[in-house]
Amino acid sequence: MATCEADGVLPGGFFATTNLPSYVKGEDGAWRMPREPRMDGCLVRSSDGGWWVREGRRVRKGDAVVVGTAEDGSEGVFVHAHGFADASEIGGDFHFMSSQVSREKPIDYAQIARLLVAERRREGYIVWVTGPALVHSRARDNLVWFIRHGFVQALLAGNAVAVHDIEAAVVGTTLGMTSHGTPTEGGHAAHMRAINEVRRSGSIATAVRDGLIKDGIMHACVIEEVPFVLGGSIRDDGPLPDVYTDAVMAQDAMRAHTVKATMAVMVATALHSIAVGNMLPAYYEDAERGIVELPTICVDASEFLVSKLKDRGTHQAIGVVTNAQDFMSILRATVEQEMT
Amino acid sequence: MATCEADGVLPGGFFATTNLPSYVKGEDGAWRMPREPRMDGCLVRSSDGGWWVREGRRVRKGDAVVVGTAEDGSEGVFVHAHGFADASEIGGDFHFMSSQVSREKPIDYAQIARLLVAERRREGYIVWVTGPALVHSRARDNLVWFIRHGFVQALLAGNAVAVHDIEAAVVGTTLGMTSHGTPTEGGHAAHMRAINEVRRSGSIATAVRDGLIKDGIMHACVIEEVPFVLGGSIRDDGPLPDVYTDAVMAQDAMRAHTVKATMAVMVATALHSIAVGNMLPAYYEDAERGIVELPTICVDASEFLVSKLKDRGTHQAIGVVTNAQDFMSILRATVEQEMT
Amino acid sequence: MATCEADGVLPGGFFATTNLPSYVKGEDGAWRMPREPRMDGCLVRSSDGGWWVREGRRVRKGDAVVVGTAEDGSEGVFVHAHGFADASEIGGDFHFMSSQVSREKPIDYAQIARLLVAERRREGYIVWVTGPALVHSRARDNLVWFIRHGFVQALLAGNAVAVHDIEAAVVGTTLGMTSHGTPTEGGHAAHMRAINEVRRSGSIATAVRDGLIKDGIMHACVIEEVPFVLGGSIRDDGPLPDVYTDAVMAQDAMRAHTVKATMAVMVATALHSIAVGNMLPAYYEDAERGIVELPTICVDASEFLVSKLKDRGTHQAIGVVTNAQDFMSILRATVEQEMT
Amino acid sequence: MATCEADGVLPGGFFATTNLPSYVKGEDGAWRMPREPRMDGCLVRSSDGGWWVREGRRVRKGDAVVVGTAEDGSEGVFVHAHGFADASEIGGDFHFMSSQVSREKPIDYAQIARLLVAERRREGYIVWVTGPALVHSRARDNLVWFIRHGFVQALLAGNAVAVHDIEAAVVGTTLGMTSHGTPTEGGHAAHMRAINEVRRSGSIATAVRDGLIKDGIMHACVIEEVPFVLGGSIRDDGPLPDVYTDAVMAQDAMRAHTVKATMAVMVATALHSIAVGNMLPAYYEDAERGIVELPTICVDASEFLVSKLKDRGTHQAIGVVTNAQDFMSILRATVEQEMT
Repeated sequence: MATCEADGVLPGGFFATTNLPSYVKGEDGAWRMPREPRMDGCLVRSSDGGWWVREGRRVRKGDAVVVGTAEDGSEGVFVHAHGFADASEIGGDFHFMSSQVSREKPIDYAQIARLLVAERRREGYIVWVTGPALVHSRARDNLVWFIRHGFVQALLAGNAVAVHDIEAAVVGTTLGMTSHGTPTEGGHAAHMRAINEVRRSGSIATAVRDGLIKDGIMHACVIEEVPFVLGGSIRDDGPLPDVYTDAVMAQDAMRAHTVKATMAVMVATALHSIAVGNMLPAYYEDAERGIVELPTICVDASEFLVSKLKDRGTHQAIGVVTNAQDFMSILRATVEQEMT
Repeated sequence: MATCEADGVLPGGFFATTNLPSYVKGEDGAWRMPREPRMDGCLVRSSDGGWWVREGRRVRKGDAVVVGTAEDGSEGVFVHAHGFADASEIGGDFHFMSSQVSREKPIDYAQIARLLVAERRREGYIVWVTGPALVHSRARDNLVWFIRHGFVQALLAGNAVAVHDIEAAVVGTTLGMTSHGTPTEGGHAAHMRAINEVRRSGSIATAVRDGLIKDGIMHACVIEEVPFVLGGSIRDDGPLPDVYTDAVMAQDAMRAHTVKATMAVMVATALHSIAVGNMLPAYYEDAERGIVELPTICVDASEFLVSKLKDRGTHQAIGVVTNAQDFMSILRATVEQEMT
Repeated sequence: MATCEADGVLPGGFFATTNLPSYVKGEDGAWRMPREPRMDGCLVRSSDGGWWVREGRRVRKGDAVVVGTAEDGSEGVFVHAHGFADASEIGGDFHFMSSQVSREKPIDYAQIARLLVAERRREGYIVWVTGPALVHSRARDNLVWFIRHGFVQALLAGNAVAVHDIEAAVVGTTLGMTSHGTPTEGGHAAHMRAINEVRRSGSIATAVRDGLIKDGIMHACVIEEVPFVLGGSIRDDGPLPDVYTDAVMAQDAMRAHTVKATMAVMVATALHSIAVGNMLPAYYEDAERGIVELPTICVDASEFLVSKLKDRGTHQAIGVVTNAQDFMSILRATVEQEMT
Repeated sequence: MATCEADGVLPGGFFATTNLPSYVKGEDGAWRMPREPRMDGCLVRSSDGGWWVREGRRVRKGDAVVVGTAEDGSEGVFVHAHGFADASEIGGDFHFMSSQVSREKPIDYAQIARLLVAERRREGYIVWVTGPALVHSRARDNLVWFIRHGFVQALLAGNAVAVHDIEAAVVGTTLGMTSHGTPTEGGHAAHMRAINEVRRSGSIATAVRDGLIKDGIMHACVIEEVPFVLGGSIRDDGPLPDVYTDAVMAQDAMRAHTVKATMAVMVATALHSIAVGNMLPAYYEDAERGIVELPTICVDASEFLVSKLKDRGTHQAIGVVTNAQDFMSILRATVEQEMT
């Protein structure tokens, strides 16, 4: 244990957290799990003898922080690395098709559908993370369906998702491209006009209520009262009035949802998937079932993103190599079947 | 015009064909389209005053071959390069989303479904070209459905497609991987055992009739009498008895189908898509509609293959960037809807 | 012309700018080029009768803004779309290898090297945009060489580039990975410790002066007084004290450099390349040579990023499909040769 | 043990080989390694009491073949699966950057260069496997350098590599594309003309001796007497007279080299890399050093190929994610340095 000497600065040997189930030994000798787990955080002592996982920037002068590097309990922190290892490993040592993520492997939509339906039944908290390709590819309707039917408890995205969704609602194009994939005359300005209209309204919710936005993802979120966080980026046009332009505030707003998550679905976004993966624990505590793995689905057109996500520590991610349009379309059909 | 001085050797200045509509001027001054068009061929005079497009290896000593390089008719050959150019090009010069192939563009399944249904109605000749990823990803059932419902007039593939399809029929795995994507104990031998059983039977058709192969793609081809060509490659295990191990004979067998094609669907194979693209004209002559473009759909998980296909001259290809499993599943559902 | 009725809200029919050379007709009938051009902006009248290109969020109530959509001069704005079209287009219509970006095409390092050397000689302003793969792949030394030799006038990057560069300087790893590509024990905390040390120092420049950071990219920027902008993102750990966490402020800081740019080199970053592409004109005005195209090199491991960049309007980008390590290594060797 | 009842047909329970070191128990109780190991073969008893690994198609009626599936020695075959496992695995369980193949990982050219130089010194047998991208990207000169300096003992490739190399030698283009990456007028016929000239000559060697082919890869192979195998495929134009059009004969010709291999370098070819991977053992027996791992370098522009190669059992492959041009250029420079 050591004390922070300045706001936002940790003691040299601070213990760096992972996203795996961890236990910290208290002064009373008891092992407790820290609250609000995530990787790349530190362990700050709470006034009640427990621990919070906190980002380094959030510590304050005088905070007591756990020090050490051992993860085997010898220095007071035990990381349960193999908690979710697959017990059913097959014998033998020479195998084909043993890669983890590949376009050559079948996608088990039925399994993903069962997870979603089970989460909804037990009133879980499903966090969706999406990129603009979902909107360009016209998978909007299917995401709206999931929002309307109670499968989305929070939507984490960026300015572009909302901009192109609203452009589609207002003008009918995305980045000036029709739903048949062809550019339109003067279409390069369409998203700028959509942004400008929402800026005039003051917010997305106002624009929905005023009748400017009549359908789509943002419309469904407003109507169904599904919270959304639009994290800003340097690539943003506009941005829309609802966007958190400050990355640190955006992270805090996103984390308010990831600490509640019982499942995560990430579709076609490198930036947001890795951002959410960083703050998402690999597990959560369920009243009935105890410590359970947090199902994390990561969909992208190439194997690279899923490998990158795993390379950044989100080892629990199940990779789906396909495009956003097809994934959303088949997943919805499979969930509809599972519901009947 | 010049004369071949040896079998399989062309005169120096031979005219090299493209896959575009072309007209050759005869001695009578009339312009005729050569028969059996393809790119990378030469023009051999026929005894009836017309012309055949032939591969250089197929010319014989004494054959008369067109010489020249001009494609504007000035040397006797006119290539109608802009016959299918899009008349509806949009104005303006600065556009977003003007790339030809991108995972960010919507896939128009309804259009592809309409093409397939229309071809079936007018008794067209739809050639399917597939790679083993289609089998690994468990899209077998959907391809079987297309075969059974009259949407497949010829199947061009390689040894691996048949091997893994038969492995799935006999053992239930593909390359030892279950339909859930996990390897099985001893599974690395499963495809070798499947090959061996068919070799014992003597042919795929015999193995179907003997009850060894009870379902799947090859089974459907045999039962529905859909011709298939399995082109051999240096990567083949076995191979199966039906495989053309000689590449030149395989090309001739494939071309017997491409000269009849009125539509082509290529799924998840670089080698076979480019091979078929090489021998496939960009158009065909229809009794009622005259010269029409030959619809060519090319499906792959990355933009690269479609760009490569276009770089090899198959400019008419419509690229679909997704995986084989999802493509087949959605296309079937869309065609079923279109049929009702 | 119309007047803005509120801060940050444009009149409905505002003219949306492109990155191409444009001319606006003034009340005196004269055509003037607007200052600080970029795409996705509007045209705000300046007090001296000229025009500024401004982001919509930056307009103020009462500003006069150009309205219209025509780009042919008929409504007062002329966009010179074909200013840089290639005069030497080849004849004929059937070609192989006509794609714009492909790993199968040769990379002309000599041409890029000549551009860099020429820019340095005429004291141009070369903006570099880089992603963390450049650091992971150990191309740090080569970028340092370019900084030291006057080829870098501004570095636009994100938190991760600086974090991993400093992690390499302080600990010797990047994300805990050695320069041979293997993870190290406890390495997952290495970048967090590096961030913490810089936060203790207060800034990167202080950490360099204090001797904490002894080599690498950030060290070279500080020593050589090359300005850098670190744009924050929701994916950031830390972040480092120098990072602009607000996306809008980061954009403004970046744009202060893009308006001066005479060349841009983008290496291995989707987010930053597209962000800079958005604000980078396709041309600049040179005292001697007049309006010249702004050379823009975009390097990525896949064709997709370059296509995406072009799909977002940065049509002038020259795509290089390779990895960051190899690009930097060969480019440096070629520039060294060109300099002798 | 069981007996083959027909040519090319194995007994039902045949043992399927892997590419790992294996030992078979003889009637005298001694364990022997089979000769000419490869995966996907069977074990045929030799007249001297030893064993050959043979493809199923090569067995003859009456041959005695090992049966069984156990790889732990209990049924007479022991597969030494962990012979080359890395002894230096790091501790802990949560790591970043633990993927095996990624464009984000540094390429260790010095290590590859040391392997090549060491093989040359001990007179090893380095097999190169290359695709046409190497030629399109103008890495020809560098491969020629490796051939001239004794680093290539065999070249395994396809028709296209030779065609484009010869097109470059004769016409200066590849598929009609100049070394600057632009198409040429009438260029689509250039490779057809090159093929025709070699067909007229009768063989590549004759065309070299006749002065038609003056430089390049094939020229260097002929002059330096480096054996090459050109395996035919259904995609081939021509083909050249030297091409093995029969896939089974091509495999046999390739295997004559892989059984001698002490190192393999595969550059930019999916088809040939997987074909050679199938027949390449993961080890070889060295007079001095005993059983050693066979260094296998696999270079491709995407992670996918290397993963696919591993998914087909070539687990020993070291993946290099870059393009052919840059790989060859840097490798040559590094080897030149290593040689001094």
